[in-house]
Amino acid sequence: MAPSPRDASPGLQERMDDVIDGVNKSIARLLPETDLPEAPLFEAMRYGTLNGGKRLRPFLVMETSALFGVDAVRARRVAAAVEFVHCYSLIHDDLPAMDDAQLRRGKPATHVAFDEATAILAGDALLTLAFEILSDPETHEDPRVRCELVSMLAKASGGHGLCGGQMLDLIGEKAEFDLGTISRLQRMKTGKLISFACEAGAILGKANESNRRALVNYANDLGLAFQVTDDILDVESDAKTTGKDSGKDAAAGKSTFVSTMGKDQAKQRAEMLVQQSIAHLNIFQGRADTLKELARYVLQRRT
Amino acid sequence: MAPSPRDASPGLQERMDDVIDGVNKSIARLLPETDLPEAPLFEAMRYGTLNGGKRLRPFLVMETSALFGVDAVRARRVAAAVEFVHCYSLIHDDLPAMDDAQLRRGKPATHVAFDEATAILAGDALLTLAFEILSDPETHEDPRVRCELVSMLAKASGGHGLCGGQMLDLIGEKAEFDLGTISRLQRMKTGKLISFACEAGAILGKANESNRRALVNYANDLGLAFQVTDDILDVESDAKTTGKDSGKDAAAGKSTFVSTMGKDQAKQRAEMLVQQSIAHLNIFQGRADTLKELARYVLQRRT
Repeated sequence: MAPSPRDASPGLQERMDDVIDGVNKSIARLLPETDLPEAPLFEAMRYGTLNGGKRLRPFLVMETSALFGVDAVRARRVAAAVEFVHCYSLIHDDLPAMDDAQLRRGKPATHVAFDEATAILAGDALLTLAFEILSDPETHEDPRVRCELVSMLAKASGGHGLCGGQMLDLIGEKAEFDLGTISRLQRMKTGKLISFACEAGAILGKANESNRRALVNYANDLGLAFQVTDDILDVESDAKTTGKDSGKDAAAGKSTFVSTMGKDQAKQRAEMLVQQSIAHLNIFQGRADTLKELARYVLQRRT
Repeated sequence: MAPSPRDASPGLQERMDDVIDGVNKSIARLLPETDLPEAPLFEAMRYGTLNGGKRLRPFLVMETSALFGVDAVRARRVAAAVEFVHCYSLIHDDLPAMDDAQLRRGKPATHVAFDEATAILAGDALLTLAFEILSDPETHEDPRVRCELVSMLAKASGGHGLCGGQMLDLIGEKAEFDLGTISRLQRMKTGKLISFACEAGAILGKANESNRRALVNYANDLGLAFQVTDDILDVESDAKTTGKDSGKDAAAGKSTFVSTMGKDQAKQRAEMLVQQSIAHLNIFQGRADTLKELARYVLQRRT
């Protein structure tokens, strides 16, 4: 029997469910249904974002914002913006010219449910919407804060972040990467956006430098741990559990943490990273326990 | 004999050449060559932007900025950002799943010169870079100005702008549009970004409301005139002159201004729009003569 995907503790699960609920409502509000002639674009944007995601990045935005007493309505806007960037990258990564994935979160990928052109445009429009949201005064009254959010998200998402990481990932299908390059690839492809999600709370809350630094360090270790466990899940799980095509990395001949260091060492590495990420949060004393619990959950998750 | 593509007056041509030169240098500086393993991404970004474009949008940014004494170095950053968005949209529009164009500006389209995946990512990264540039303090010391630039560019480029317009354009291959819908499509697909290019000078220069309004009105008429003449050129020119596949709209069964109102009426409409656009600039007395000349040039251009 496949393990339940609900393996977080009841307390953590409840907070995660709250975030999922809140961010889904925000997304639906930011992407209202429409009967304009170009409606398929907005339907695809909704389809690619309102699809039962775990909302890890929104969770990080909400929890780090809460540390500094940031208003939840504002934090939720930033959470939605980060999720829009994450979802756009999934929509584009799934395209036939990229990873050619048919399934995403147990449902047909956006380009399968609509068509390739609509999926490309939906991704483009989601990325653009993220910046529109962050630059809006409703996100924060201080334009310095808004500019910093825009700038940091752009850096995490562009050629030296998400896009560069995906380029490396495609190159990795035909080249063998060493551990250093795999780590760099993952830092760019997943790590930087996860770091931004954690730093966003500090930016919104105008946190001091040491608190901000602690969250970035936490995020860096957490992001890498997340990716290592993703590689482990890719070889261990089936599509029914993860809701996406599995074993694809091996089939595509991609170098992963597992293919490079072996499954046992990968598991040890993930555990070490999680311990390290938790240690960075000691600066917050008892106030960051949920973030600590989340880090431990990364090791136990099945999806 | 095909008419020369150089049919602007010597004075206008000189200013356009200056802008082309300046913005090309800015683009090259913002997109330096690299020997990182993900270099193909940056090569494709350079290929898709440093390809002999007319730089109409940068020209509008530079000329409207000059009206308010904006520092040219700053204006050139905004000009490059607008051009990045324009070029990203061309790279994505040319993809097989979209307009399936092989040629762009007389050279293989980006997805032909590289591959589809790299072209998609290069477009994504260019769009992202535009927002990174605008949010940078080097673009303007006032974060209010930077936020407004980000917000206005995002609105011009997203689901209610560029992306929505391209969606409509694709739908138009299978549906017949009336003149109102064609106008709306063109306003979204081309007009809004041209409007932003003109408004950018006013935003950077903190212009008063009536000056800003005049430039937006000028841009709206100019953008529509530009699109009407584009449709006329599509049926009149050959690939050798325009440097792109021609007659494609008719072949794709798309409704255009020409297919809806006929070529003669389309020409009259373009002339009327240009006269109208020029009239909006009277508020600047003699100081906007280059912008007026540009509007007249739109009627005469052959590419």
